[in-house]
Amino acid sequence: MSSTLAGAPEHVAARLERARAAAREAGVDALVVTPGPDLQYLTGVVKHSHERLSALLLPTEGGAAFVVPTLERPGLDGSAVEAMDVLTWTDGVDPHALAASRLTSGAGAVRRVAVASDMPALHVLGLRDALPGATLELATPILRELRMRKDTEEIASLRRAGAAIDDVHARVPGWLVAGRTEAEVGADITRAIVDAGHAEAAFVIVGSGPNGASPHHEVSDRVLQTGDVVVVDIGGPLPDGYNSDSTRTYVVGEPAGDVREVYAVLQRAQAAAVDAVRPGVTAASIDEAARSIIRDAGYGEYFVHRTGHGIGLEVHEEPYVVDGNDLLLEPGMAFSVEPGIYFPGRWGARIEDIVIVTDSGCESVNQRPHDLQSC
Amino acid sequence: MSSTLAGAPEHVAARLERARAAAREAGVDALVVTPGPDLQYLTGVVKHSHERLSALLLPTEGGAAFVVPTLERPGLDGSAVEAMDVLTWTDGVDPHALAASRLTSGAGAVRRVAVASDMPALHVLGLRDALPGATLELATPILRELRMRKDTEEIASLRRAGAAIDDVHARVPGWLVAGRTEAEVGADITRAIVDAGHAEAAFVIVGSGPNGASPHHEVSDRVLQTGDVVVVDIGGPLPDGYNSDSTRTYVVGEPAGDVREVYAVLQRAQAAAVDAVRPGVTAASIDEAARSIIRDAGYGEYFVHRTGHGIGLEVHEEPYVVDGNDLLLEPGMAFSVEPGIYFPGRWGARIEDIVIVTDSGCESVNQRPHDLQSC
Repeated sequence: MSSTLAGAPEHVAARLERARAAAREAGVDALVVTPGPDLQYLTGVVKHSHERLSALLLPTEGGAAFVVPTLERPGLDGSAVEAMDVLTWTDGVDPHALAASRLTSGAGAVRRVAVASDMPALHVLGLRDALPGATLELATPILRELRMRKDTEEIASLRRAGAAIDDVHARVPGWLVAGRTEAEVGADITRAIVDAGHAEAAFVIVGSGPNGASPHHEVSDRVLQTGDVVVVDIGGPLPDGYNSDSTRTYVVGEPAGDVREVYAVLQRAQAAAVDAVRPGVTAASIDEAARSIIRDAGYGEYFVHRTGHGIGLEVHEEPYVVDGNDLLLEPGMAFSVEPGIYFPGRWGARIEDIVIVTDSGCESVNQRPHDLQSC
Repeated sequence: MSSTLAGAPEHVAARLERARAAAREAGVDALVVTPGPDLQYLTGVVKHSHERLSALLLPTEGGAAFVVPTLERPGLDGSAVEAMDVLTWTDGVDPHALAASRLTSGAGAVRRVAVASDMPALHVLGLRDALPGATLELATPILRELRMRKDTEEIASLRRAGAAIDDVHARVPGWLVAGRTEAEVGADITRAIVDAGHAEAAFVIVGSGPNGASPHHEVSDRVLQTGDVVVVDIGGPLPDGYNSDSTRTYVVGEPAGDVREVYAVLQRAQAAAVDAVRPGVTAASIDEAARSIIRDAGYGEYFVHRTGHGIGLEVHEEPYVVDGNDLLLEPGMAFSVEPGIYFPGRWGARIEDIVIVTDSGCESVNQRPHDLQSC
């Protein structure tokens, strides 16, 4: 149960060196990274080991090494990891002691060890016990600085992901027909996401009528009715691991009553937030750009979540576009801009594009129209 | 991105009480269980929260509570968790402090806190910092005692999973045709696994010729050739979370040279191991029952992995059928019996059934023939 993406060796070497430099600056003696998006980012290796330890050991001083169960060693064939010392282990060996021994074999003391935020407790506590002289901390503050600034290759991947999910949204109106269930529409969308080149449909939200007012609704057996407003929030990873995520709001037939008026406010809010994106402003200011318009129109209490989240190898990563986040935006940062307005028990609406900060503003990877589309 | 299985309330209450009793006996003051198989086992709740803490708090003394982000609270509607105190939190709140505050609000001191083995480092280190007076340890020794003894409902699920993967193996010979690639066969199998009622195809190994000698091979673009021995190891979870896992070895056309002779040894080894399963013998003795036959035939060095692993809500869980495991088997324990013989660069073979210990022996959930099947 493992597979390896081709991490180009020159990218891997550069990313490892940047990680090492960032760790050194933070005063950390070593990074230990188990399988997950951090490992994929640093090495190109995608492995799903469960009870057995696989991990990149990256001391600030000294060479990188990779610990892997002997049986999973063939999964690393052809990967960038082969340029490192590969330490294999079999049943009966304590892999945490093996890792600790390697980490402490250098000249300097190992006092601070930063671990990937998704490392399972099994390995966190195993390393804690095997490194009694060290204190464990999260590698997130170090690695997020690297991962949230996308390089050229990553930006190209996010553009491809955006184009792929746009292709799916272009087909959605044909499936939103009164009399069908959300689940039936969701099944059509799931197939289309894969057909469009994604490795899988990671999430498919079809929130019709009152279900659209629950931002984390998925699909249900509710039957679409004429006049329903329908929130469709969909995405997933391309085979290279980079994710799409885009929301459009549709209406079955013609919308009732106040829908157009509220939707116009949402559309202005989303556009204003995108317009506000540029280097040097805070992430919080983007949230406020959307929120102030919704608040001023009297719907502030119905916008119940943050305006956006970073995206890349994870659907949700840094930077978060949320009140209080004083992070200054820089070129290469990529995140969603997705304000919503939700009336519990009645209906909801959301518009979401992924944008990438440029030298002077931002680029959206999603190009589908923002209007409330009638189906 | 969450969903809830219907954990029958009476099962949940009984399992929580057993977990509490086992924790008390171990001298642990509280269990903290984040989403994963342990949480599904204890509560029926299947949630996939990433950066946000959701967790069951189960103090040895006092009532159970569940921490969940406010936005994910609707995902718990109708679940057994609603009988507990549900503590919601929003952005800006420290969820680890919230959990710690609840855990330390009882009468006694909280000194030992056991966490699920798959809890991400983000939450392990968050709890460590929020509970400076406590020491964290793994909940595995406590929960594995419960989870590895399957109850009637779980045994019924494993039987259904076994029948479903048997249906897939029955179709495999029709797909193993010279000129097709492993990947093409794998795609057929993946669809069949879902068609047979699984929630997904968790793993599909089609190891032809030399690839069959790598136990962790998945699929490749290798083209099947007449005379190839092909290891097919497949499975996945049913919608209720319980897994199938079964291996059969096939041959395209007629096998060459020594294949039949070696395979006959493997078949005897697998049968002998299954025959050895009964209450009161050690897990290690089952490994030895298979291994001694392969060793005596002169192929010991080519059987490079343990004989089996437990199975249930995880594909790999306790008990492990491996040298040195002195665990005494009991009725209700479920595990694979899957010896293999692997000749690097040439070919390999494996036979795998899932068995459940009964009062007097064991029951296999897989019924497909064990012969080397020609396709």
